[in-house]
Amino acid sequence: MQKRLLDHIDFPSDLKLLNPDQLPQLAKELREFIIDIVATKEGHLGASLGVVELTIALHYVFNTPKDQLIWDVGHQAYGHKILTGRKDIFHTNRQHDGISGFPKRDESIYDTFGVGHSSTSISAALGMAIASQLKGEHRHHIAVIGDASIASGMAFEGLNHAGVTKANLLVILNDNAIGIDPSVGALKQYLTNVKKGKERQDNIFEALNFDYSGPIDGHDLPELISELERLKSVKGPKFLHVITTKGKGLKQAEDDQVKYHAPGKFDSVTGDLLPKSTIEQAPKFQDVFGHTIVELAKHNTSIVGITPAMPTGSSLKYMMEQIPERAFDVGIAEQHAVTLAAGMTTQGLTVFCNIYSTFLQRAYDQVIHDVALQNLPVIFCLDRSGLVGEDGATHHGIYDLAYLRCIPNMIIFAPRNEVELRNIMFTAQNGLEHPIAIRYPRGRGHTINWKQPFSEIEIGKGIQLKKGSTIAVLSVGSISHNVAEAIDMSKTNSMISHYDMRFVKPLDHKLLHHIFKTYKEIITIEDGVLIGGFGSSILEFASKNNYTVPVKTLGIPDTFIEHASIKQQHQSVKIDAENLSILFRSTALRQS
Amino acid sequence: MQKRLLDHIDFPSDLKLLNPDQLPQLAKELREFIIDIVATKEGHLGASLGVVELTIALHYVFNTPKDQLIWDVGHQAYGHKILTGRKDIFHTNRQHDGISGFPKRDESIYDTFGVGHSSTSISAALGMAIASQLKGEHRHHIAVIGDASIASGMAFEGLNHAGVTKANLLVILNDNAIGIDPSVGALKQYLTNVKKGKERQDNIFEALNFDYSGPIDGHDLPELISELERLKSVKGPKFLHVITTKGKGLKQAEDDQVKYHAPGKFDSVTGDLLPKSTIEQAPKFQDVFGHTIVELAKHNTSIVGITPAMPTGSSLKYMMEQIPERAFDVGIAEQHAVTLAAGMTTQGLTVFCNIYSTFLQRAYDQVIHDVALQNLPVIFCLDRSGLVGEDGATHHGIYDLAYLRCIPNMIIFAPRNEVELRNIMFTAQNGLEHPIAIRYPRGRGHTINWKQPFSEIEIGKGIQLKKGSTIAVLSVGSISHNVAEAIDMSKTNSMISHYDMRFVKPLDHKLLHHIFKTYKEIITIEDGVLIGGFGSSILEFASKNNYTVPVKTLGIPDTFIEHASIKQQHQSVKIDAENLSILFRSTALRQS
Repeated sequence: MQKRLLDHIDFPSDLKLLNPDQLPQLAKELREFIIDIVATKEGHLGASLGVVELTIALHYVFNTPKDQLIWDVGHQAYGHKILTGRKDIFHTNRQHDGISGFPKRDESIYDTFGVGHSSTSISAALGMAIASQLKGEHRHHIAVIGDASIASGMAFEGLNHAGVTKANLLVILNDNAIGIDPSVGALKQYLTNVKKGKERQDNIFEALNFDYSGPIDGHDLPELISELERLKSVKGPKFLHVITTKGKGLKQAEDDQVKYHAPGKFDSVTGDLLPKSTIEQAPKFQDVFGHTIVELAKHNTSIVGITPAMPTGSSLKYMMEQIPERAFDVGIAEQHAVTLAAGMTTQGLTVFCNIYSTFLQRAYDQVIHDVALQNLPVIFCLDRSGLVGEDGATHHGIYDLAYLRCIPNMIIFAPRNEVELRNIMFTAQNGLEHPIAIRYPRGRGHTINWKQPFSEIEIGKGIQLKKGSTIAVLSVGSISHNVAEAIDMSKTNSMISHYDMRFVKPLDHKLLHHIFKTYKEIITIEDGVLIGGFGSSILEFASKNNYTVPVKTLGIPDTFIEHASIKQQHQSVKIDAENLSILFRSTALRQS
Repeated sequence: MQKRLLDHIDFPSDLKLLNPDQLPQLAKELREFIIDIVATKEGHLGASLGVVELTIALHYVFNTPKDQLIWDVGHQAYGHKILTGRKDIFHTNRQHDGISGFPKRDESIYDTFGVGHSSTSISAALGMAIASQLKGEHRHHIAVIGDASIASGMAFEGLNHAGVTKANLLVILNDNAIGIDPSVGALKQYLTNVKKGKERQDNIFEALNFDYSGPIDGHDLPELISELERLKSVKGPKFLHVITTKGKGLKQAEDDQVKYHAPGKFDSVTGDLLPKSTIEQAPKFQDVFGHTIVELAKHNTSIVGITPAMPTGSSLKYMMEQIPERAFDVGIAEQHAVTLAAGMTTQGLTVFCNIYSTFLQRAYDQVIHDVALQNLPVIFCLDRSGLVGEDGATHHGIYDLAYLRCIPNMIIFAPRNEVELRNIMFTAQNGLEHPIAIRYPRGRGHTINWKQPFSEIEIGKGIQLKKGSTIAVLSVGSISHNVAEAIDMSKTNSMISHYDMRFVKPLDHKLLHHIFKTYKEIITIEDGVLIGGFGSSILEFASKNNYTVPVKTLGIPDTFIEHASIKQQHQSVKIDAENLSILFRSTALRQS
């Protein structure tokens, strides 16, 4: 069997030794390499398959890392990683102590800018390009951005600035008409028309002072290379429109681009997804949201659902299928999503605005200024809160309690399980007078029989989950599961009381007075940052009420937590059941 | 003397009784009314003068408040307020217990959406328009947005969504080529070309599926009215491009549009600004920033300055005049500004990114994801931190300590005075290894002799300002001035120690251990929200180190603080010198 070209390539310098006519063969091998590893190790598949030729062409034509290449979001950068020194460790992708699933400056000099959230690449590349200009260096700066990401406001801000500079910036639009879900919006329609030849060449990007070229076939290596070569000598901001197919080269991935964005394990030869376990599992929290909003919206016609580009990830897709006139995918536009929700709410609609906790950071001002300040009862459903596992430091939803708690009028609730998520959604749509943030974790809960009749949750009420004599453990939301397990493991049952405070805001003052008057020691546990979080709210309560019972706060320390499984991440910050049980045991020992 | 038309007009229903040919006379009177009151009561002038005709035309043609009108930002809504029931209280504008300087839902049914920060109007109006559609109501929804605001990413997100709806939405671009400072960016250049007839009519907004008309003269009432009448029957999203002159009708305001944006007191007849006091005053903090960055940048050629649309307000204008190649106004684009800064910093530039504290909320995710996560030493200068006075609830810079403190790698410093601001800027540009946020207040400090030789500030070091025996008062930054005054007033001198902790992060642990071991009671004072703020950081320290000394935290409670003078606002939350002195006295009495 012939040795693969890829076997000789560790760095772009090796790639440059190939003849242009060998590159299609390399593309084939690179695609197979990605498929083979992602099939067993999991990860993001479709995006990287779609840019195999573009990746090769960029490293072939440009002089990376001197020329600086930024992949927007970074889902599509697997080929880049493999060709820039990480082929042999690519199988550790997204695992504990392995390489990151996204470009990351610490990891390689070829990763010029850490990414994860969308639409940052133009601003970052422009910053680099202006720096080069000021320093008198001659480098190329290339941002590769998808058509879903370029429709986000931040990307427009970058284009708007770049267009009045003389920066040596090349923006490559990787237009495959899909982000994680199909792209939406007027710009997407416009790009579709451009591709069909319905729009003139003096287009939006030319209006913004970019030298526009394209659209060209992003799987045609000779065309890519010749066009990139040509662009090397074009001065100032320039824009190349490249058409690609997400999932290119694996039939199933091309045919079902949403599912094969991050398909989990699959057969690398046939492409078939591996059969799921037939054991009945508890549902994903996102599906509890997705099914429950449909159930509620059928009875309450004022209900509307909004997602910024995550119909599949949030499971709002069920409502989009069944009640399309009241379910909106607004694209990667968190700022717009929140203020749109505020506008709708002024008119009496009951708006569930579903945003991953980490992405609500994009709309922080809108939450304060457009929602809370006007006390509009928007219902925020914050999926993927807490530590999120393999996506790593860019994607944790761990700041939400701290950054939302300081906003007047906000209610903050964390459901402990699927049933509580249903019930708080039921409660929230039933005439709530304040905005509410409902934060729940990535993945599955533990309640197989989750679809129980609705019941109202009293706002601001915590509950006792277990009685004990001496130590009160206060947790909030789904992390309570680890706590309950730890109490069982610790064999100090009689001494430990366990409360789920549920509402981080408003706090259950009555219950807290009881707790501070009853126990000798209090431990708080949260799946969020310690600084300013739930534990701090308990310290603030104690200070205000002159309680001197010692309070120990557990949660995520003041550092960025790298990719690993959620379980490993809980272990690393000591909020897994085992570590908690050790703490409970030692605390009980001290108090007895 | 003939009675004015305006005297008969309290609501749009009165306006509609006029003949079209009376409207120019009304415009003249409305303009005079605004000028007369703003001349003595202060406020925003130029923006409202520029839209007098547009305001009259909108209320004349449309059926407000059933038809819903949203003024982006709201600086330009004085005429709207006067014509919608607030003529007789307009002289209370921006004052304590008076009307707000911005549209506000609580204030009037004609104020359909509270504004203050830019670029929210399209999203909010679209939300209302979709709600009307769902409810089967026939209303018009109109967003009036300036050319500076429409270039912000959030506005693009709104347009991008609106273009694929059938919403009954009219976006009116109030194009005067200026925000607070002259507009910038590629879109602005494009609009200039459109006005000059250099661009075809099938333009950017048509590309986004809007029915575009214009540009028309925004001071021509008959043309405005006929065009608005025509647009009433156009279905779906539509876009009217209106050309206006900011400051229209007052020569000085037209000639110096930046100064007359909010000119302070002036002669209503001549337009001349009233002479400033000749008493030598301490400088504005913004000017200390503005002059100091120039001074530093002359020696350190790696220094770059960035402002999102606030060259005058931040005083970066001095650097833009003297070192234009390294000073960037990027327009209303906080998200882009922060990630641009991050990109530049990767290349070794020393970037001062100056953003009002309240507007950094727009770039929260970029601070976490693009700066702190990569530990890039961007220098954030957060102007207008703390309570900001007459601009009111939308503009306070009071969340910053809480929302920044929970981000790993961040240094947070609050200078007590002008000299400390200079010195921390000097320190920060001298090889800092982490991002830093320097927060300072609106207005003037107290140090006339501020331009002293630079000296380095040790990161994480607090200082003692006054010795005392029993009670430790811990403040942070410029609010220390109130504290010092209060200690003098309280006549409990010997018992009270005063520390300026200066760094909210990292805290000075050594000093805090000393304080907790030395004093019987601790009081923290900050010009920021109590929840999660500086005081909470002290509670967290105490909890972690098992100190039981009582800590009382003072700051801004969990409510939105309305417009008034800064002094009145300090009084209302009891962090003015008088209230503090009463507290110090009673605390001292209790401890003695």
